[in-house]
Amino acid sequence: MLIMMKLDSPREHIEKVKEKIRSLNCTPHEIPGSVKLAIGITGPAAKLSEDVFLNMDSVDEVVRVSKPYKLVSREMKRDDTIIKLNNTSIGGENLMVIAGPCSVESRQQIFDIAGELKEMGIKFLRAGAYKPRSSPYSFQGLKEKGLEYLFEVKKELGLMIVTEAKDTNALPLLSEVADIIQIGARNMQNFGLLRDIGKTSKPIMLKRGLAATVEDWLMSAEYILSNGNKEVMLCERGIRTFETYTRNTFDLSAIPVVHKRSHLPVVADPSHATGLRDKVLPMARAAIAAGADALMVEVHHDPEKALSDGPQALLPDQFEELMKQVKLIAEVIGRRMN
Amino acid sequence: MLIMMKLDSPREHIEKVKEKIRSLNCTPHEIPGSVKLAIGITGPAAKLSEDVFLNMDSVDEVVRVSKPYKLVSREMKRDDTIIKLNNTSIGGENLMVIAGPCSVESRQQIFDIAGELKEMGIKFLRAGAYKPRSSPYSFQGLKEKGLEYLFEVKKELGLMIVTEAKDTNALPLLSEVADIIQIGARNMQNFGLLRDIGKTSKPIMLKRGLAATVEDWLMSAEYILSNGNKEVMLCERGIRTFETYTRNTFDLSAIPVVHKRSHLPVVADPSHATGLRDKVLPMARAAIAAGADALMVEVHHDPEKALSDGPQALLPDQFEELMKQVKLIAEVIGRRMN
Amino acid sequence: MLIMMKLDSPREHIEKVKEKIRSLNCTPHEIPGSVKLAIGITGPAAKLSEDVFLNMDSVDEVVRVSKPYKLVSREMKRDDTIIKLNNTSIGGENLMVIAGPCSVESRQQIFDIAGELKEMGIKFLRAGAYKPRSSPYSFQGLKEKGLEYLFEVKKELGLMIVTEAKDTNALPLLSEVADIIQIGARNMQNFGLLRDIGKTSKPIMLKRGLAATVEDWLMSAEYILSNGNKEVMLCERGIRTFETYTRNTFDLSAIPVVHKRSHLPVVADPSHATGLRDKVLPMARAAIAAGADALMVEVHHDPEKALSDGPQALLPDQFEELMKQVKLIAEVIGRRMN
Amino acid sequence: MLIMMKLDSPREHIEKVKEKIRSLNCTPHEIPGSVKLAIGITGPAAKLSEDVFLNMDSVDEVVRVSKPYKLVSREMKRDDTIIKLNNTSIGGENLMVIAGPCSVESRQQIFDIAGELKEMGIKFLRAGAYKPRSSPYSFQGLKEKGLEYLFEVKKELGLMIVTEAKDTNALPLLSEVADIIQIGARNMQNFGLLRDIGKTSKPIMLKRGLAATVEDWLMSAEYILSNGNKEVMLCERGIRTFETYTRNTFDLSAIPVVHKRSHLPVVADPSHATGLRDKVLPMARAAIAAGADALMVEVHHDPEKALSDGPQALLPDQFEELMKQVKLIAEVIGRRMN
Repeated sequence: MLIMMKLDSPREHIEKVKEKIRSLNCTPHEIPGSVKLAIGITGPAAKLSEDVFLNMDSVDEVVRVSKPYKLVSREMKRDDTIIKLNNTSIGGENLMVIAGPCSVESRQQIFDIAGELKEMGIKFLRAGAYKPRSSPYSFQGLKEKGLEYLFEVKKELGLMIVTEAKDTNALPLLSEVADIIQIGARNMQNFGLLRDIGKTSKPIMLKRGLAATVEDWLMSAEYILSNGNKEVMLCERGIRTFETYTRNTFDLSAIPVVHKRSHLPVVADPSHATGLRDKVLPMARAAIAAGADALMVEVHHDPEKALSDGPQALLPDQFEELMKQVKLIAEVIGRRMN
Repeated sequence: MLIMMKLDSPREHIEKVKEKIRSLNCTPHEIPGSVKLAIGITGPAAKLSEDVFLNMDSVDEVVRVSKPYKLVSREMKRDDTIIKLNNTSIGGENLMVIAGPCSVESRQQIFDIAGELKEMGIKFLRAGAYKPRSSPYSFQGLKEKGLEYLFEVKKELGLMIVTEAKDTNALPLLSEVADIIQIGARNMQNFGLLRDIGKTSKPIMLKRGLAATVEDWLMSAEYILSNGNKEVMLCERGIRTFETYTRNTFDLSAIPVVHKRSHLPVVADPSHATGLRDKVLPMARAAIAAGADALMVEVHHDPEKALSDGPQALLPDQFEELMKQVKLIAEVIGRRMN
Repeated sequence: MLIMMKLDSPREHIEKVKEKIRSLNCTPHEIPGSVKLAIGITGPAAKLSEDVFLNMDSVDEVVRVSKPYKLVSREMKRDDTIIKLNNTSIGGENLMVIAGPCSVESRQQIFDIAGELKEMGIKFLRAGAYKPRSSPYSFQGLKEKGLEYLFEVKKELGLMIVTEAKDTNALPLLSEVADIIQIGARNMQNFGLLRDIGKTSKPIMLKRGLAATVEDWLMSAEYILSNGNKEVMLCERGIRTFETYTRNTFDLSAIPVVHKRSHLPVVADPSHATGLRDKVLPMARAAIAAGADALMVEVHHDPEKALSDGPQALLPDQFEELMKQVKLIAEVIGRRMN
Repeated sequence: MLIMMKLDSPREHIEKVKEKIRSLNCTPHEIPGSVKLAIGITGPAAKLSEDVFLNMDSVDEVVRVSKPYKLVSREMKRDDTIIKLNNTSIGGENLMVIAGPCSVESRQQIFDIAGELKEMGIKFLRAGAYKPRSSPYSFQGLKEKGLEYLFEVKKELGLMIVTEAKDTNALPLLSEVADIIQIGARNMQNFGLLRDIGKTSKPIMLKRGLAATVEDWLMSAEYILSNGNKEVMLCERGIRTFETYTRNTFDLSAIPVVHKRSHLPVVADPSHATGLRDKVLPMARAAIAAGADALMVEVHHDPEKALSDGPQALLPDQFEELMKQVKLIAEVIGRRMN
């Protein structure tokens, strides 16, 4: 349920509504919109009557939300969520490109790539320190050492860092390094991790699970928001289908579908979705044209020797071409790249 | 197997190679490229030795083709197939938009829509006279009457017609009306129909089946080409997955995948792929950005009263907006719309 | 809509109801139950009021059927459809096993296998004369010659024949040979063929399409029944999923699902569903345990040399073992094999 | 790679081989078979030459294992893994049935059901204390309180307990209560949890993920075995497909597929696979007929009031009927229920 407050409602009226909600064993969530304030209600006893609130001061409207997700829904918050980081943002008119190698492999490697990406104007470096791999015998990441190198890159080059949290234990250390914490596809329904990450104050990038419907995905985001962290972006990276020419099936329709149902920004990851270097450029263009708020692309100096996911990484000059084309598409659909 | 002939091979050398192929109980197929001629070989006894041909006059190279499809493959024909119709074409640099209602519903309806589309510069009108429907109780199309109205539209307005063949029996009549014959998703593996249509001289649009891999799809095109008809375009219209927010899952990655493996042009149908009017525009843009050679879009004056697939049809003014945006994307990726 | 007639309604009352239905541009279908007669109504103008019928003589009840399928539904016909052929039957308490090679390959081959199967007590021989193959270069069946051999087998050995119709043209000839006409998975939504086959008087085995939901499948059966042919059995043969260790995913839950919703018997085909010889025996047992009314199993003398689907065919002695085990499972769940 | 030792190899030869393996930075794993000992090798430097071992004392054979999984494979260990618990076992000839409610809801509830199940001869009670739910607003289990009640049931009634671990933090407490620790479908690729659980000495039941291929599933089991815990059973509980009449698609073919590739026992869960009470009995029979080593079935006294998954739980008398029928099927395929 959602309480729409009148324009310029005094703080005391707002507080009274929130008190009322708490007195009914539910939890109020303030959701500021561009003009009016809404108060979302979550909790086990969600079967409340509208009447309770309708006669309270400054209450404008009471909206029943029928979807299982609430805090992430457009009904709850009409305006796009824009996640601000330093002087830039993800969501809204801006179009962001996040780039980097799959994993941190060595100090040298990450500095080389990061340096080159910075020169191309990239602000967010992606790279994994902890790598969830389907085989226990595959490279699992440099772990703490990897985070250390990322921290150095951040300090020396001024890049913001996107890196994955595999479990709760790594969160404290990771939070010191990461500007955006990524939750991987295989952890999309690791509800304990979602809850813990919901208690941090870092922006979260939640990747879609291989078998997750859009609804499952939004429900997982709901876990994070309902624990207090409202800065969540959703990342489409392909679902599992019968088609085998591409690693996954890139569900680009999910971008406008999510945008209609939710206020959260959507990132598209053409590298993991296709698993094929030569498909990254056309699918990056397509993702932007479909309305993605950001792209995440794998770039590697020497993909043949990459310790993970080499076949999908772009070479730096291929990435430069991608940036050029993406910029043109972005302009056509009224977005700028800052 | 593929025989590459030398530049400017004399006709008699070419004929000798073809004779040799026939003498081995196989069938030769001439495949003109931009500079050189190739001769494809198909047939049950495909286990021939390269040596047989290597020493013949004007033979440049003999290429083993490992994929199960041959005539549709890039190995067989390096240059894009461009299907020319009147003063325009599908494939190559050109970007074509095909539009119209799902079905012909009445003389009035089809003339109204066709007239308006013509004014917007549309050259190809799509509309079904025979409608394959999953329920025997649903509207099945106006059949012969529908074809008649389409014929009138063609004569009076000068539009080219794209319409679906449900079975072999309707082919003779359909061929008099259609400029492009469509094979629907449910008939993609109706091999008898593919064979018969392969013997016509009309361009064919082959829609991808709901459970068809890209390889299945190319094999179905191979049926048509191996029966003599080389003018085939492939139409991506969504595959069936677990996701239910959209009717199907629009597999846009299939566009660059097909372009790499085959010389045939690819059409994208965002209307059937999503089943949702408000997703057609972003997904049309995305399809173009992914490299589609043509779009096919449903447009209806009064979608609420459409006898089939109303919820996915655009209103004329929505379609006009789509044309505007698509044009801009096309320019960015170096295509023109003629 | 369904009109339930009172017990022992006189013929004239029944005829009056049917006349009324026709006067409303709909079609009546008599559906005899074990105690009472029902009259199903189909047709474009299905939005009739119950009142029209409720006051007519001998009308007991008027039931609104909400599912898109009607004639195939349990609401329409409570009792299991039992298809009688010679002295045996498919459906009901009986459990039938249909066996044979994928294709008729030669006169010798089909007589050899048929003879051996007959000795094991098999009454129905399956074998294809027309083979729909995904490649135009694969063996497509012996066609008319194959039907001829099957006809000889039928006459000389007294076996009943199950063979596939690929298209309408072959129906007249096929009907002289086949005791059960099979519609293949790829033709499940070839609606013209379904309509034509619905006008024959041969029992039909309708295989489930690779991407067909249970509802799609029942709707396809509805096409056949609504054209007059009530003797339809449904054949589960696997659906397409992401799993690749088996050729398809055998959806055995579909058996009790169909049995609840429809009165039609269900055949299970573990050979096509798994594509692996050593999985046929356990999955045949599982299909019976799940409630299948019949099994269809591929058997071949020399699978290594089979012209199609060799890797899934059982050798005769493996099939004999299967028969033994299936018999035991059948007894446990209260079925006999005649 | 796998080193097969000769019959009755002396301990010192075995130790020398293991030392050699360690000297190459790999890890040796002793795998006792019914007659001979094998030594599996895992580790990053798996590209060893066979020669290194072939000339060592008592080495019989060196087998290259091409599959990405090793310790779980039949090549590594030919004999079925039989997990012994008290006087009974899972795997081998025995057929086990595990039953109980989805969640512990109260002390009274769990004692009532447990008591009744015990009288029916059930030895393993399943019930969740921690419930991973797709919505943050759904009942999440009684947590520690739930474990406490299960501990009481275990002590007072002598039942063995199967319960799920959601994350690493709960493992110490859970290990005191659980006789078998379950890893849920959504955690199948929570690799940190798999690693930690691999270091415990409790038998593990690893449920298959919704989008997991059989190979992914075996790789996840490999994580557990490679960390030292060899007592793993795999639980098939349905995969996600386009079919919606059942909650998931029960992939019963996976049972013989896993049995061929791996020595680990397979449990089948018809309750979660179908999500429908009336499908549990036929699918339980089918699972046994397909070769499952154990069944896990949900039973609840009052499913209408169950706090989770009520619609799929059997009533006690329905479960009693299931036990009767399953016993008969088990006998037919040569298994006993102890």
